[in-house]
Amino acid sequence: MAINYPNGKKFIPSKEKPVAKKKKDFSFSNRGKTLEDELNETNDYYLQRGLAVIHKKPVPVQIVKVEYPSRSAAVIREAYFRAPSTTDYNGVWNGKYIDFEAKETENKTSFPLKNIHDHQIHHMAQVVKQKGVAFMIIRFSSLERYFIIRFEDLEVFWNRMITGGRKSIALDELEATAIEVKPGAFPRLDYLPILQNL
Amino acid sequence: MAINYPNGKKFIPSKEKPVAKKKKDFSFSNRGKTLEDELNETNDYYLQRGLAVIHKKPVPVQIVKVEYPSRSAAVIREAYFRAPSTTDYNGVWNGKYIDFEAKETENKTSFPLKNIHDHQIHHMAQVVKQKGVAFMIIRFSSLERYFIIRFEDLEVFWNRMITGGRKSIALDELEATAIEVKPGAFPRLDYLPILQNL
Repeated sequence: MAINYPNGKKFIPSKEKPVAKKKKDFSFSNRGKTLEDELNETNDYYLQRGLAVIHKKPVPVQIVKVEYPSRSAAVIREAYFRAPSTTDYNGVWNGKYIDFEAKETENKTSFPLKNIHDHQIHHMAQVVKQKGVAFMIIRFSSLERYFIIRFEDLEVFWNRMITGGRKSIALDELEATAIEVKPGAFPRLDYLPILQNL
Repeated sequence: MAINYPNGKKFIPSKEKPVAKKKKDFSFSNRGKTLEDELNETNDYYLQRGLAVIHKKPVPVQIVKVEYPSRSAAVIREAYFRAPSTTDYNGVWNGKYIDFEAKETENKTSFPLKNIHDHQIHHMAQVVKQKGVAFMIIRFSSLERYFIIRFEDLEVFWNRMITGGRKSIALDELEATAIEVKPGAFPRLDYLPILQNL
């Protein structure tokens, strides 16, 4: 499957990626970096400078079996990935509640909506109802292009799909409705300035 | 140890509690309910009525080994609890960013500050700097009493400790500085009205 979910799902078939992702090794070369890595670096940058407090939520797991070896840390011996009930990132920036989901695709011409779960759409709708700022960051990995789409605009494409329309957002539709983020060195994805305009 | 941390630490010695907690069985009797259960019920209540969008963050785990049995879900075979870098609960309520930690103690006369981690204090300070609302909910389990203490007040007791003062907050000090939440049936811990006064 071409898409990496920055949530529990990312662990499914690939054996390499999850291990790579679990290592918190933030080199500044972008080779093989996941969108999650890029966002974690950016959020660390914001945190260290007191610009915003935004964190990725831990991957939700259902813990079934835990062992307690004497004199050492508890070891989880059986657990399963749960579907997250919210988006992956949230926090506060200058009094505003910030909430977003991050998705990447290898696709070159459109973003497949199947990567978004109903409950994530539902969650973002609830956030907006509470006057929070909700959006999605989409990375077109093979194009090295990044877009921020407000939930209000994403919802239009989502509703088009559920009412029988196309199951993806065309790249040119994103160019027209979303804001493109130009990746930089440090921070990698400087998305805060864009939120001013959302 | 008398204290249940609503974070990863809760899994350490007790073999019973974590299993009980992992089962999302929200009966409305309060027998043996943890503070986490009570808060999850309350947050579900708020969510269902569109009053607030506040979730507990998943327990952060460091995943070391994942198996992929053919035709079934990935199984985590080795993982460890990580110390959370933030508080356990956050979300949005009427445009405000809400962030809190929940702790319970069996102690009857004071709340031991050793249950709070530096990084949680540091996180709450950052949240307040970003104009978020940060506080702690303390349950005195054996007294069935609950207090909400603003981070700004908690910090005073924390600083008293790190400058060599007492290592706990006396119950009467909480009565004087915190706001008591009277537990109810539904929702169990109706804390939103209190935030108006924070």
